[in-house]
Amino acid sequence: MKMDYNNMLAERIGPEGIPINALTALTPQIEKATRAMKEKRPQMAWRDLPYNQAQIVKDIQAYTAQMKPQIDAFVVLGIGGSALGPLAVQQALNHPFYNELPREKRGNNPKLYVVDNVDPERLVYLFQTIDPTRCLFNVISKSGSTSETMSQFMIIQAMLEDKLGKEAARKHIVCTTDPESGNLIAIAKKEGYKTFYVPSAVGGRFSELTPVGLLPAAFCGIDIEGLLEGAAQMDAMCQQDDIAKNPAHMFAALHCLGLAQGKNISVLMPYADSLKLIAAWYGQLWAESLGKKYDLDGKTVHTGQTPVNALGSTDQHSQVQLYAEGPYDKIVVLIGVDEYRETITIPNTYADMPSLGFLGGTTHNQLLKTMQTATEYALTKAGRMNMTITLPKVTSQSVGQLLYFFEVATAFAGELLNINAFDQPGVEEGKDATYALFGRPGYEAKKAELDAAQPKDSQYVI
Amino acid sequence: MKMDYNNMLAERIGPEGIPINALTALTPQIEKATRAMKEKRPQMAWRDLPYNQAQIVKDIQAYTAQMKPQIDAFVVLGIGGSALGPLAVQQALNHPFYNELPREKRGNNPKLYVVDNVDPERLVYLFQTIDPTRCLFNVISKSGSTSETMSQFMIIQAMLEDKLGKEAARKHIVCTTDPESGNLIAIAKKEGYKTFYVPSAVGGRFSELTPVGLLPAAFCGIDIEGLLEGAAQMDAMCQQDDIAKNPAHMFAALHCLGLAQGKNISVLMPYADSLKLIAAWYGQLWAESLGKKYDLDGKTVHTGQTPVNALGSTDQHSQVQLYAEGPYDKIVVLIGVDEYRETITIPNTYADMPSLGFLGGTTHNQLLKTMQTATEYALTKAGRMNMTITLPKVTSQSVGQLLYFFEVATAFAGELLNINAFDQPGVEEGKDATYALFGRPGYEAKKAELDAAQPKDSQYVI
Repeated sequence: MKMDYNNMLAERIGPEGIPINALTALTPQIEKATRAMKEKRPQMAWRDLPYNQAQIVKDIQAYTAQMKPQIDAFVVLGIGGSALGPLAVQQALNHPFYNELPREKRGNNPKLYVVDNVDPERLVYLFQTIDPTRCLFNVISKSGSTSETMSQFMIIQAMLEDKLGKEAARKHIVCTTDPESGNLIAIAKKEGYKTFYVPSAVGGRFSELTPVGLLPAAFCGIDIEGLLEGAAQMDAMCQQDDIAKNPAHMFAALHCLGLAQGKNISVLMPYADSLKLIAAWYGQLWAESLGKKYDLDGKTVHTGQTPVNALGSTDQHSQVQLYAEGPYDKIVVLIGVDEYRETITIPNTYADMPSLGFLGGTTHNQLLKTMQTATEYALTKAGRMNMTITLPKVTSQSVGQLLYFFEVATAFAGELLNINAFDQPGVEEGKDATYALFGRPGYEAKKAELDAAQPKDSQYVI
Repeated sequence: MKMDYNNMLAERIGPEGIPINALTALTPQIEKATRAMKEKRPQMAWRDLPYNQAQIVKDIQAYTAQMKPQIDAFVVLGIGGSALGPLAVQQALNHPFYNELPREKRGNNPKLYVVDNVDPERLVYLFQTIDPTRCLFNVISKSGSTSETMSQFMIIQAMLEDKLGKEAARKHIVCTTDPESGNLIAIAKKEGYKTFYVPSAVGGRFSELTPVGLLPAAFCGIDIEGLLEGAAQMDAMCQQDDIAKNPAHMFAALHCLGLAQGKNISVLMPYADSLKLIAAWYGQLWAESLGKKYDLDGKTVHTGQTPVNALGSTDQHSQVQLYAEGPYDKIVVLIGVDEYRETITIPNTYADMPSLGFLGGTTHNQLLKTMQTATEYALTKAGRMNMTITLPKVTSQSVGQLLYFFEVATAFAGELLNINAFDQPGVEEGKDATYALFGRPGYEAKKAELDAAQPKDSQYVI
């Protein structure tokens, strides 16, 4: 993986870029953050995931080998990181029409579905598509109190027990949860469900390289050892003290400097269909980790940068007009691929038509890469901060690298912003209001607060 | 459709809201823009699409009836509005697992694929999934010079002619393009392809209600007359001079006032899986129409608001932390649905567990709606601008309403911002650079400019 940040700098893009001396001036904070990353490493349990899961990988492989022949589909019940991670890895490494292929073209692996919402249409329509008695349902909730996931679980558990009986239903459910605390581990033990664990010290959005992500990936035939190897490779790069050699730290520093210069939007724009959902996964990581009201000293800061995911070249026809001409409010990170997994040649059919002739004899590979270069050029010429990450090829190793890269970058940005990148206090208000509206015992005061809210004024409703 | 903007106002959400007198103070500009919308209506050909397509609808219906039995899949080759519109309408109105259902469960309609990128993996993988000789390919390009779409067309044309012969290949291609100018109409005439037209005066991102969107929708069994009826209903609402009764004008005015108060991000967050891609379609409309360097007086303004699409409740576990605690830089538009098309009940399995018991006996319908109410409450309490659009139900009529609503809102915002909402000059630089890099004749000067660009400094590459 290569990261080119030439076009972030004022020396190349002009007044809206980062002056190189601003980067130099950040040295004390960078050094402090680098020390903090080392000192806090024992608390960042996700950093050791590439190294301490050999036995877990074996357990997953044994379990998938046993279960695969018995099922048609593996269904993830999860939300947030528990959905975005499995989806991103599946899209990156498997066939884009995976579920539509006949089983033998899927390496004899089951289909994958990820049910990450409680839209009532979702489960009904899913069961018009697949037979639940031929599925393995993976209930993923660290706390076991996620209303969306746990309600889905209860619906499916009842359906399976109704159709198959309690005994046979049991082996259609596998849980991924905290090893000790919470409802789901209690339920799993009581009901006798097969269970994998998310280490207590690993938060949801940093959990893709635990069984949260590894189990669905293994069921779809993805090389999970390759993912972990890639993560380990990136960890080695990200332990460099010198920020000029540390891509994740540099990514974070440049984004924080950009934020300080008013770039409150971070666009991730892969030029590869396979990486589109990596951008969505990054969206959660960056938004939820860095969007914070208070800093570590208790000061009100209301910081954070809004992630936007785009896709090249598709969004050249949707978003790039805004990126090139709109406000100077964003950093655009292009992600390129040196070598695509397929090549497709454009025939020279209309050689005499000026806007078509030049395409004849070239490939979609060249066209897409050229468009990426052209977009980089156009953004740079328009004075817009942009940078480019290049993967040699999309493989389990390079995807593992990329995931780990963004995790370290996020943690380092948290240090630079002096905030806690690992909590999410801002979602409690909505959860509490939901509980109150449902009349959950213990939420009477919140219910009273909601009831006392100013009523809507009908003149502001059209 | 109902629009509630109580929570945009400072009177309800505090200092970061819009003071009601700021809305009052905008009256002269609103009146001017309202007059301009009337005066320019003859140039806004997209506004009349609900009324002048009775014959086109008949042609489409006759053609789809003839072709459907002959094909397994309808494949759109298009990008930008030509892809986002068909995808959004399909997701809104058809089964979420449409392509995976057996044909009889799809109302005997063909599958739908939308090929909106030139990733070389895309077409290769598509043809591992479907048989191209059992497909109808819809080439959509108004200009006929869109490199992505036209190169896909040339590849597929050659493949079909190779497999079927020129004569039989012909009926597997249908074009949607400008009736007079451009390469595609010339090719279609020469090759004898069936062709539908995008009126010359309708731009790509306002073209969903032309055959660009109507043809794919009709092939998938969608009630295209219903879409147009809905649009006509919305047009009636949007012709009101009084902004207090005109939802699209009010939406635009509030967003422009928000932008002036530093809200440079517009989040669209439907609480319905079916509307997720409507938010992506809106993303192009809002970004490309309003992201402009110059205003109509030639003044440099660098205006625009960055659209972000989210999904409730899914993104409560991804983005809402940032929305509630991060910078006061966004307007969040929640889209709700009164009545979902299905109902699913949560069994009362774990009545004794505090975080699960309250869910027993309720429905996913209640849960999702309650979460929407709770998010609205949390955002409001945190002083964040938010508003809510509610559809009675997702139907072809209400989707037609919604599409037309956003189109009028975008045009009206263009008037308020005093910019041209219908061009996209900022994408030319990237196109020209692409042509230059491919050595297209006539782009020698641009090639020289690219060659003269400052080389990358390797110290800024990690």
